[in-house]
Amino acid sequence: MERLIAPRKGRPVFGEFRKIVEEGFERYLAPNHDCPVRLRESMRYSVEAGGKRLRPVMVLLACEACGGDPTDAIPAAVAIEFIHTYSLIHDDLPAMDNDDLRRGQPTNHKQFDEATAILAGDGLLTLAFEILARDVKPADVAVACVLDLASAAGVDGMVGGQMADLQAEEGREPRVEGQGHDLGLSALGPEPSALSQLEAIHLRKTGRLLRSALTMGGRIAKADKNTIEMLDHFGKCVGLAFQIADDLLDITGDEAKMGKGVRKDAELGKLTYPGLLGLEESRRRAQSLIDEACRSIEPLGDRGLRLEALARFVLERDH
Amino acid sequence: MERLIAPRKGRPVFGEFRKIVEEGFERYLAPNHDCPVRLRESMRYSVEAGGKRLRPVMVLLACEACGGDPTDAIPAAVAIEFIHTYSLIHDDLPAMDNDDLRRGQPTNHKQFDEATAILAGDGLLTLAFEILARDVKPADVAVACVLDLASAAGVDGMVGGQMADLQAEEGREPRVEGQGHDLGLSALGPEPSALSQLEAIHLRKTGRLLRSALTMGGRIAKADKNTIEMLDHFGKCVGLAFQIADDLLDITGDEAKMGKGVRKDAELGKLTYPGLLGLEESRRRAQSLIDEACRSIEPLGDRGLRLEALARFVLERDH
Repeated sequence: MERLIAPRKGRPVFGEFRKIVEEGFERYLAPNHDCPVRLRESMRYSVEAGGKRLRPVMVLLACEACGGDPTDAIPAAVAIEFIHTYSLIHDDLPAMDNDDLRRGQPTNHKQFDEATAILAGDGLLTLAFEILARDVKPADVAVACVLDLASAAGVDGMVGGQMADLQAEEGREPRVEGQGHDLGLSALGPEPSALSQLEAIHLRKTGRLLRSALTMGGRIAKADKNTIEMLDHFGKCVGLAFQIADDLLDITGDEAKMGKGVRKDAELGKLTYPGLLGLEESRRRAQSLIDEACRSIEPLGDRGLRLEALARFVLERDH
Repeated sequence: MERLIAPRKGRPVFGEFRKIVEEGFERYLAPNHDCPVRLRESMRYSVEAGGKRLRPVMVLLACEACGGDPTDAIPAAVAIEFIHTYSLIHDDLPAMDNDDLRRGQPTNHKQFDEATAILAGDGLLTLAFEILARDVKPADVAVACVLDLASAAGVDGMVGGQMADLQAEEGREPRVEGQGHDLGLSALGPEPSALSQLEAIHLRKTGRLLRSALTMGGRIAKADKNTIEMLDHFGKCVGLAFQIADDLLDITGDEAKMGKGVRKDAELGKLTYPGLLGLEESRRRAQSLIDEACRSIEPLGDRGLRLEALARFVLERDH
């Protein structure tokens, strides 16, 4: 792991990419004249609460892997993290998952209040598109990024996935016209219908957004259509593996490191991969998805190595 | 009024523009494969609840007034109404204004539930940007529209205005670094500080979005910078007049026509124009703002007449 993400040719390493995007968050959340102070504080609170910054770093790595300058991808990296953060703020609300803690800190509505949390989420969501439109150049790349991010975050993607997830928890079969894009896992499992439902939820709830991190990075590097599709497939595999890893951590994880109560999903009777497939089979599938992801970007050659390393990190992380 | 918006040269009238944008809403909310049915129903419920469609019609009229084809402006018209609708859904939530009725119908969270209402709002907000990016051409115009709409709807505009409004209701002076862009009214009134605060809130909460309706319409017609600024000023005046008219209707309006309890603002002790200035002075100011708006677009000549008519309608409406 260390070897793969070590600096090559003087370029910044993973940790430096993380620092670069975090500086970007700060710049875009600097005080200005028209935003109420409490609202800005609330947005900063959740953005600065930390996290792995997986999505924004993926944007920069994808840009780099396609031969672009990762600096050009900072606005898109900031935008996707703001979208991710807004989704966490809204998902934590009492009417949704009703969580009091997130990354070991009070959730936004606990620290501020519900109205502020709703508006902070709305504000971050809207700001993401403002940033893309203002700072991604040239215009056709900016439009492509807005389209990638909006369709990934919207009702056919993340928002729809959260809705389906809530309905599944209530024991209601979510009525959707389709079941997402099957990666073939569901044909193998012991409970194909539940597994297919779980996969459909995660492909939308977390998968689409991760895919847009990759495609935006590629677009900013002016990658061709085939390369964008390659990155998209990489993102789809990594996204599912990430979710399986999350489910595994929910069972095996360390509460202090996770910053939230673990085994919560199992207690809630939520559908999880380990619940449906067992621990060993879940691990095996996550590994095979990461292998597929890495194989799929082989055509990028050495430039894709750090993207590969980040994909493998998804399985090794302990929080 | 009728005279001004009567058909000229075979072009559609105001009512037809309204029909055109409503057909647009339907097209963009048609069923597809990935959106959960309940979520789509919830979004359609609020979008189809009616309303004057002032903002989307303004987009089409502004485009027409600048010599463009209003048909080209339909995606932007749909996008701005989706943003307006999302803001109503979220503003009605129990944690915000806690309203049970909207336009005589149960509010979204009453008809569905809070989680669905939050997600329907998030979905409409995100879809607005997806529509702009997918269907506004060429790319530089699409980017300019995303920027107009996102900055108008965001924390420096509508979302910030709602936050400041909530804080003002709680009797907390909203701490903002600035007080918006003063139109000069506040220098004249009996309580300059309260009036200035009220004006600052409305310039952001409703004014910015209305301005973006005008500027997006102009951009789609490829209007030059001066014309866009002219439209922007028109929108700023009409937006404030609209808010004064709303405050007046809250006192003098007919509950059945308004579709909500009237005199609610006064009972809540909210800051209002009639409360600060009296009925007559409020009417006079609204009229003078509309006059200023109409004067400002005189350079557009006859092409601007229907835009003028819509501005005057703002004062004459009874709901």
